Formats: sequence, C-alpha cells, structure tokens
Amino acid sequence: MKREEIRNMRLVQFQAPHLMGPHLGLESGNGGGVINLNAFDPTLPKTMMEFLEQGEATLSVARRALAAQLPVLPRSEVTFLAPVTRPDKVVCVGMNYVDHCKEQNVPVPKEPIIFSKFASSIVGPYDEVILPPESQEVDWEVELAVVIGKKGKRIKATDAMAHVAGFTVAHDVSARDWQMRRNGKQWLLGKTFDTFCPLGPALVTKDSVADPHNLKICCRVNGEVVQSSNTNQMVFKTEELIAWVSQFVTLYPGDVILTGTPPGVGVFRKPPVFLKKGDEVQCEIEELGIIINKVV
Amino acid sequence: MKREEIRNMRLVQFQAPHLMGPHLGLESGNGGGVINLNAFDPTLPKTMMEFLEQGEATLSVARRALAAQLPVLPRSEVTFLAPVTRPDKVVCVGMNYVDHCKEQNVPVPKEPIIFSKFASSIVGPYDEVILPPESQEVDWEVELAVVIGKKGKRIKATDAMAHVAGFTVAHDVSARDWQMRRNGKQWLLGKTFDTFCPLGPALVTKDSVADPHNLKICCRVNGEVVQSSNTNQMVFKTEELIAWVSQFVTLYPGDVILTGTPPGVGVFRKPPVFLKKGDEVQCEIEELGIIINKVV
Repeated sequence: MKREEIRNMRLVQFQAPHLMGPHLGLESGNGGGVINLNAFDPTLPKTMMEFLEQGEATLSVARRALAAQLPVLPRSEVTFLAPVTRPDKVVCVGMNYVDHCKEQNVPVPKEPIIFSKFASSIVGPYDEVILPPESQEVDWEVELAVVIGKKGKRIKATDAMAHVAGFTVAHDVSARDWQMRRNGKQWLLGKTFDTFCPLGPALVTKDSVADPHNLKICCRVNGEVVQSSNTNQMVFKTEELIAWVSQFVTLYPGDVILTGTPPGVGVFRKPPVFLKKGDEVQCEIEELGIIINKVV
Repeated sequence: MKREEIRNMRLVQFQAPHLMGPHLGLESGNGGGVINLNAFDPTLPKTMMEFLEQGEATLSVARRALAAQLPVLPRSEVTFLAPVTRPDKVVCVGMNYVDHCKEQNVPVPKEPIIFSKFASSIVGPYDEVILPPESQEVDWEVELAVVIGKKGKRIKATDAMAHVAGFTVAHDVSARDWQMRRNGKQWLLGKTFDTFCPLGPALVTKDSVADPHNLKICCRVNGEVVQSSNTNQMVFKTEELIAWVSQFVTLYPGDVILTGTPPGVGVFRKPPVFLKKGDEVQCEIEELGIIINKVV
C-alpha cells in the first residue's frame, strides 16, 4: 500500500437516509465524502467502540477498504456522528498549554490536572451546542482529543502510543460560572451539560498523523480567530498523559482524553466574552479537520 | 402476586462455573441463593444495562420468575458481580448527610455538590479493594446508591421515582490525599482508582423497599462499627438529586447515583485512621444487603 493511503485513515460514524442506524465509514480525505465500511464488509461492527475493541482484525479490514476503489457517498448525503459515542471515560486535562497558563497568571502544573465529562455530553461534529438557561457564562475551548485503542493499566510512557487508536478534534464547552464558582468548585457540572462535548469529524489513526504534538490548533467564533496555537505548547504530551491517567484507572478502547486548551478563551478576556445564541464556533486542528457547532 | 413477593425483587448479575459469562439473576431474599433468570427465559438479556433499557417488558418477566417455584443456586456456587457494570455515569454527591457536615464543621450545602467516578472503578460486592501505592490515605464511605431505570432530562422531583429502577449498597472508597490536596483539588482522581466503587449485592427494585429514606446505614472495619446512621439524615433525597442532576445531563438506564456518606469516615477522626492491607470493610444498608470488601 502506498504511504499516502496509510496516512489517510479517517474513521467516522455516520448515518444516511438510505441506511438503518449508525454505520462505520472512512472519510475520504479531510472534508471529503464517506466510504461505507459496513457495505464493504458486512461482518464489521457498526459502532466505533466495537471496532476498536476488535483491534488489529478490524483495522486491517479498514486498510483494505482504503486501498480499494469504493463508492464515496457525497458529504451532503450523510450525517456525521461523533467518531466515538458512549465511551467508558471522557478524561480531561486542565491547564495543559504553556501559553494558556500564562494567560491565567498561574504556574505551569508539575503534574497533570485531571477532571472529566460524562459521555452523555458527546455530540457530533456539526451538532448544535445547547446554551442551558442555568448558565450565563458558556465559553469555548478547542482541544486535541486522543482516542484509546487498547486496554491498559499502568502503561509506561514509552509504551503509550501502542494504546492510542488515533486523534480527533474536541470542543470542551465550559460553563465558567458552574466550573469556577458553583458546585463546591468541582469543575464537573460546568463541563458536562448535554451537548458540551462536540467531537470529530473523524478518528484519524495515529499512523495517519505526522506528529500529533506539532499541529496548528485554532478556534473561531463567528469567523473571528479567538484561539490560535500549536499542540507543541502542550505541557504534558499524549504519552505522559496516558502514563499518568493509567496509574489510577484502566484505560479501555474508546476512552477519550481531551488534552487541554490553548489561550484565548472568553473568560480571561478583558472584558470577558461568552457564547450567545446564534454564535457559530469552529474548532480546527491541522491534519485532523474542523468541527462546526452552532450555539442555540 | 402476594405483597411479600413484589417486595422481594433483588436483581443480580452473577457468574457460575457451569455457565458461560455473566448472567442475570434474582437473589432469593437478602443473603439467599440465586435464581437464574436467563434459564427461566432465554430471551432475556444477560446484562443489567440491557435489562433496564428494556424497561417494563423485562421487569414483568422477572416478576413472573419471582412468582414461580424455580431452582435456587446455593450462594457458595455463584460469584456476584456488581448489579450494574459499565453504566454511562457514576454520579456522586458530596456532603449530603446532615451529621457528616457537622463532623467536618461545614455548613449543610444549599445545593447538591456533584462529582463523579469513572465506571471503570466499579467492582463486585465481595471483590477486593486494591490499595494503590500512590495513596497513603485510603478511607471508607458507605453510601445508598440509586440506579436509574428510565431515560430522562429535566425530570421534576415529583416525577423522579418513575425514573428509578431501584437501590443498592455502594462503598465510595476515597484516597483523601488525592481528593483533598492533589490534582488541583478536583476530587475525581482520589475517588476513581480501579476497585474504588464496590456495588451490590443486588439491585433491589424501588417497589421492594418500604422507604429508601428511612434505612439504617452502617460501615464496619474489621468488625468494628465506624459509621452508623440512617438515610433519613440525607440533605437532598433521591427525588431532589434526580431533579438536580438531570438539569445538567440526560440520565440513562443503568446510571448510578451515590447519595453521600454519613459521619464516621477515617479522615476526620482524631488522629485520622486509614485503610491498610488485610482490613475487611463491611457496608450494610437495611433491607438492601451487605457488601464485604477486603483491602489488599
């Protein structure tokens, strides 16, 4: 197989009017149409969770599909779901960009700071973010998300990449009032309202990304760039995060790790800026893609 | 059906040497043997998550099984699993007993304080709790756990009980060093080490509990009573907690809510006491049962 084909494995979950329920597919290049993997091989599972749990067996089928000349469904005919739905965990990392720490005037953490969202907050890459009436301070945060491909506990940093399936774009929507001032200062509620975790569009396999720690990362609100950095600013990289988190918990296929956000969030602007109904947020990471979520 | 039969629906997940994989069963009274529900009706799902998702249809089969004279597997021949495994959420409530707040010299919260464990921390009712080398301050917390039976968002307190499947006993094992001093004071890591959420032995359906908010609740360490209270001391009861949490998130069948612990935890003793290898912790709630976890 040619190198550019290996470097182009973009797994998606999608729906289409002529298909019953969610299907697994391949995005045909960043922003391209969708190849129906379940049509290529009807024995493949229809969810990413099961696909990942089967490991190399299912991945090799996807590789064969990529090498074949298969029909591509036009993008306008499919609905993209989040590439992973109902994982066991959505692990989040706080203050993990050097420049984001400067923005807050806080020292760079010596250890990763871990919090979480419930999986119920995950929505698709083009789904709406619902502004809850309970919050007046909903803010944006573009993040690189790591998707786990292989179960493990106490994984060494040097072995960590063997446990990674790939990467995707995440929007860690954050209700600052609930995160910072309510709920006994436990961040969970402010981070986990329904729709507060858009993901996608594709799970780009690790072999398809040149260097996950050297990708431009950017957030635009109504077309204006509000965050613009590079994943090389991450304090703790993917390998260290996996080693750290897996000291505490067993990681399972499908688990998602949101690796923190660069500077430019609304709450630290002077004066602070928050999302309002009608806003459109675009989160983009080089090589991975772009997710677009309207605030309603 | 006789009233005592309705009041005795104790759903379990179990394994036995002669059976392949986890099965669904009925505990034959508090501390009794197990009736194999999958043998009674092979069309029933084998996991509690699927059982709960099917709602009244599967519950009515369990009711018929309860009324029939079915063979009971002796307790010595089965391994009890947690009654729910891999739920979407394990929601936890902090400082939710009036007397536990007094013990800490903190005011009774005006709103529930919500944090979480990852589902990966759930273990069975008689499984071992693994003392991680990363913590020197592992503490006990007996708690009443609510299991959700019906999906819902923005559930009114007056409708909340319609969304409850039943109740079980939980041990909210807590690494105080990680909860209180590390990880930017986000409680998650201290609460979510693998094995830090023993649950069981049975999901006792809501119809089988006379009053979930008037049950003796007790924790013993090596036979000595360390916590002894009553669920009538809860600040926010099941209905209010469901209404509160479902403002933020959609609740799904299988979601577990740990409703907080009474006084007597180790960290607030003078001097503080923590669990050590070889300890045996018993968590017991009247009508629901007892879970016994050895610390290793």
